Amino acid sequence: MDKPKKKLQVRFLPEGMRGTVDHGTRVDQAARRLGADLQSVCGGQGKCGKCRVRWLDPAGPGDSAAALTPPTQQEEAFLSEEALRHGWRLACQCHILADAAFEVPKESRSGRQVIRKDPGAGSVTPDPVVRIIRVKVPAADLENPSPDWERLAQQLAPEAGHAPLHPDAAMLKALPDALSREKETAAVLRKNGECIALAGAAGSSLTGVALDIGTTTLAAYLCELTTGEVLATSSEVNPQISCGEDVISRIAYAAEGRARRQELQQSVVKTVNRMIAAVCAEADVAADSVADMTCVANTCMHHLFLGLDPSGLGRSPFAPVATCGIDLKARDLGIRIAPGAWIHMLPAVSGFIGADTVGVLLAVDLDPSKETVLVIDVGTNGEIVLAAGGRLLCASCATGPALEGATLSCGMRAAPGAVERVWIDPETLAVEYAVIGAAADRPVPAAGVCGSGVIDAAAQMLTSGIMKKNGAFNRESSFPRLKRTNKDIAFVIAPAAESAGGRDVEISQDDIRAVQMAKGAIQAAGRLLMAESGIERVDRVLLAGAFGSVIDPVSALAIGLLPEISPQEVHAVGNAAGDGARLALLNEGMRRKAAVIAKTLETVELTTHPDFQREFAMAMHFPRMSHDLRKHRRS
Amino acid sequence: MDKPKKKLQVRFLPEGMRGTVDHGTRVDQAARRLGADLQSVCGGQGKCGKCRVRWLDPAGPGDSAAALTPPTQQEEAFLSEEALRHGWRLACQCHILADAAFEVPKESRSGRQVIRKDPGAGSVTPDPVVRIIRVKVPAADLENPSPDWERLAQQLAPEAGHAPLHPDAAMLKALPDALSREKETAAVLRKNGECIALAGAAGSSLTGVALDIGTTTLAAYLCELTTGEVLATSSEVNPQISCGEDVISRIAYAAEGRARRQELQQSVVKTVNRMIAAVCAEADVAADSVADMTCVANTCMHHLFLGLDPSGLGRSPFAPVATCGIDLKARDLGIRIAPGAWIHMLPAVSGFIGADTVGVLLAVDLDPSKETVLVIDVGTNGEIVLAAGGRLLCASCATGPALEGATLSCGMRAAPGAVERVWIDPETLAVEYAVIGAAADRPVPAAGVCGSGVIDAAAQMLTSGIMKKNGAFNRESSFPRLKRTNKDIAFVIAPAAESAGGRDVEISQDDIRAVQMAKGAIQAAGRLLMAESGIERVDRVLLAGAFGSVIDPVSALAIGLLPEISPQEVHAVGNAAGDGARLALLNEGMRRKAAVIAKTLETVELTTHPDFQREFAMAMHFPRMSHDLRKHRRS
Repeated sequence: MDKPKKKLQVRFLPEGMRGTVDHGTRVDQAARRLGADLQSVCGGQGKCGKCRVRWLDPAGPGDSAAALTPPTQQEEAFLSEEALRHGWRLACQCHILADAAFEVPKESRSGRQVIRKDPGAGSVTPDPVVRIIRVKVPAADLENPSPDWERLAQQLAPEAGHAPLHPDAAMLKALPDALSREKETAAVLRKNGECIALAGAAGSSLTGVALDIGTTTLAAYLCELTTGEVLATSSEVNPQISCGEDVISRIAYAAEGRARRQELQQSVVKTVNRMIAAVCAEADVAADSVADMTCVANTCMHHLFLGLDPSGLGRSPFAPVATCGIDLKARDLGIRIAPGAWIHMLPAVSGFIGADTVGVLLAVDLDPSKETVLVIDVGTNGEIVLAAGGRLLCASCATGPALEGATLSCGMRAAPGAVERVWIDPETLAVEYAVIGAAADRPVPAAGVCGSGVIDAAAQMLTSGIMKKNGAFNRESSFPRLKRTNKDIAFVIAPAAESAGGRDVEISQDDIRAVQMAKGAIQAAGRLLMAESGIERVDRVLLAGAFGSVIDPVSALAIGLLPEISPQEVHAVGNAAGDGARLALLNEGMRRKAAVIAKTLETVELTTHPDFQREFAMAMHFPRMSHDLRKHRRS
Repeated sequence: MDKPKKKLQVRFLPEGMRGTVDHGTRVDQAARRLGADLQSVCGGQGKCGKCRVRWLDPAGPGDSAAALTPPTQQEEAFLSEEALRHGWRLACQCHILADAAFEVPKESRSGRQVIRKDPGAGSVTPDPVVRIIRVKVPAADLENPSPDWERLAQQLAPEAGHAPLHPDAAMLKALPDALSREKETAAVLRKNGECIALAGAAGSSLTGVALDIGTTTLAAYLCELTTGEVLATSSEVNPQISCGEDVISRIAYAAEGRARRQELQQSVVKTVNRMIAAVCAEADVAADSVADMTCVANTCMHHLFLGLDPSGLGRSPFAPVATCGIDLKARDLGIRIAPGAWIHMLPAVSGFIGADTVGVLLAVDLDPSKETVLVIDVGTNGEIVLAAGGRLLCASCATGPALEGATLSCGMRAAPGAVERVWIDPETLAVEYAVIGAAADRPVPAAGVCGSGVIDAAAQMLTSGIMKKNGAFNRESSFPRLKRTNKDIAFVIAPAAESAGGRDVEISQDDIRAVQMAKGAIQAAGRLLMAESGIERVDRVLLAGAFGSVIDPVSALAIGLLPEISPQEVHAVGNAAGDGARLALLNEGMRRKAAVIAKTLETVELTTHPDFQREFAMAMHFPRMSHDLRKHRRS
């Protein structure tokens, strides 16, 4: 009789599928079992090289010798020595020998990517910091042998207004060629009079990139600056994830010294450059003609992008290095757009309230003297802003990644295969669920549960009496989908037979506890901000970020995540942080506005607030469901 | 009987000693024979490694396999593979197999270096663009957890005036460390409110570097910015010399494409960084604390330093890429001073009149409405400025390197061993001469003739009747030092027996022709500028540059290089171009003044001037010596 095989913990990023597999399982088979999206063109024969994955060394980039079988000849044919050294492997060629996590890069995935960082609706009249001026520059001759730049400046002068014209030194390198090659020269001028670039052909457009650096996901939007049109978007996993999944572990990694900070900076810069190349290729724009860039990020990601030491963010009193808006040359960071172009880093408020929150507020454009609005941005951290009584109050709370689905027993990100909706019929207790990526003619087996699915499940268990207000599962319930073991109890959403991984997709009692912690923190934060402003009701709730786009407002209300409000007044505003970066890219006034927001925003420090612990403890409970909400069920 | 050995042309830079040696001559023996300064500590046994020289590949940096015997074991012990690849050799270990040129670096020379780029007398009240502000920055605490930069800015604000305080991104990298390490923080602030650097220790000084990039020689001055004191100076050979000795050949080299321009730029940047390291080491200043930099150069060197395409300078209508003053971050060029520091490139006037001439005028500070002054800067090119009648007129003329001594039959730069003074007694026709580096107790044998020596010789031959006014040697003269051969005739200054190279140090008829060309160009240029201003006499003549510092005014007057004037009114002003850079470093107003000078300076184009050819032809003749000058002889 065979000895039972050792069980190993395996995880696939960015989707977040996780689970246990037998020792020695091949990586592509593990991916399939756990429902991770990974293509297999040659059917696992090592002939196509399309199933490249990267083994993520918990100790930082390194080769995979410790956790996987040695590289095969096929792998050596497709992967350079350097790639192997950085953990790249072919999933169909190697077997798992220890707990492991893998990155599945975009090109190795087959399905539609559902990292929801699409641009939102926020719009603005374009008034960018740069503009393009097309002029005819006479050739130098013996009558007028003045320098190339002076002859160009002479033509630009009538258009330049009062700003003193001056050249960027990198632009000058391209000038003689541009003047001799083209009849008409298109100069890119900043409002301060600096000529930062030359646009080649007469028909070339003026473009910029808005960048949103999230802890987990990067998003880039290539925009036409004169029309505001989004030409292309790209999102990728933040590569720093291999140096720590959350902000705290990345701060710890960076604290080890300058080399580590350089590594973190280089990795994100490299990915951003690849994203810029991708959006430019899609829109048929030369990357070195991109003339402007803006960037939002939480304060830690901001520091790591600029190469600043984030240590201060990790210890009391949590002081950042800088939060003001910063303009620097793209070349200073090695960002490959026009060499003379600038990057505007939007201002942050504090170590906890970053430029991403400022970006959200720029995008949702609240008037706190006219309306009362609660803005909730849930990611790995939660940021809550209350606009009320002429003030903008904000708080940050550690929610953990539960609401993103990442750390739940069957949790995964909102990617194909994720259960995103759950219904329990209150009469029959019959269960239905919806899976991301499934269509009427193309069912997709459930691989796990994402954030909106777990909130739905909690809300439905609550209203069906399967779960008590204190979050404890009702062991006496006749609910047939309750799986009771000695240690635990779980709600099986999709039984093993229907699932992708061949195991039950379920919500455990521990999962519910994690949701309670997360929603409790957000709820308590919202209540404290409301108490601080002396208000008891809000007019609207805005949900920002990927999570906000997929959550069912009725379920969120049911579990008490949101204050009492009609579900019609709960609005998802998409990736509002990225939108804010886009608005600041398109309109210079928005940069001034961002500075005003950053100054105006009043931070309420929760950890030291005398009422927070009490509010938090109370908020851990689920509320009694109001009659109103029942009416909205399955609407 | 041995076949006579093949003769090879050999040259040693920066001193410029040249001559022929037999095929197979050892490099150190060739150096000794030609009078080049090269130390030999171990006596040529390959044991000390002190006689490092670099073989200069006419095709750019490369290994010396083509021109020298292969490296010996001794050389491999002292020189890295990379050094060998870049042409570095031990002079006592290799033999010359083809025409060759060698660089003798400073550390391989034994004698005092006489590259005369010492700072001149120009002075100014210091008012630099940067200043240092020492403040105490309170630590962040829970009461005030504001960012490092904001806490610093708060302290700086009272001192900053109206300029909006903003951080350089590179400075921010050093900020957390500086705040936690030091009780007092010294911030370096530019006048525009940018905080560019942090000076560490409380006692640290505020320093800057003024740089003069000559075609042949680079000079750097490290200055204390608050006192104006020159802390240290350094000069090195322009390494681009291996890619062409004059401006024209370097333009041709650079025209081959971007890679060539990058190579030229990198080579000079590398040397400048070495010079900065040297002056900083000498003055005990940390290079990364140097907070500001200014630079003068002729327009071609300016373009090559910035990586701009100089092709336009090499063909009609000789349009530069840019001549305006340019400010750029030192890091943009890879210059290793404070990473946030700026470099101010002083403005030029045209392709022929560079920022070096503007620097000269800044240093000599003329008032053309009050005085009439002719400024002559002779290098590989001659630049002539006339201040008269409220105008500043300037002209550039190709003098060739004859007046620097470089291309004469026995020419060399003003380095130890060069004949710098020559006297011929008009009665006895006895010859005396003075050699650079010689002292009463330490005679130095003559190795060649430098620029001042050849002008002296010409003037003395003229006044002694050995040479006619048209420059022809008087073959009928009884002068015993006239050496007549079938082809040529020469004035032997130092016979072989007295010389370092064991051959006559002499002035040939061809040498005199070269001097006539050079002095004719300068004289004609001066005359045309005077005619243009309608004046016939000048109040003063200023001689700028290395050549101007060593020339004997009486001799210069005797050969007609200068307009008629009393020798007392002829003044050497030292390296005035470098002085100009220094003044602009020390005082911001000087940068504005430089811009005004560059705008005010009226260029008179000689090559197209209707009278130039006639004036030039006339000026080729030597003048009749006036009685006045005879009185000044040997004064």
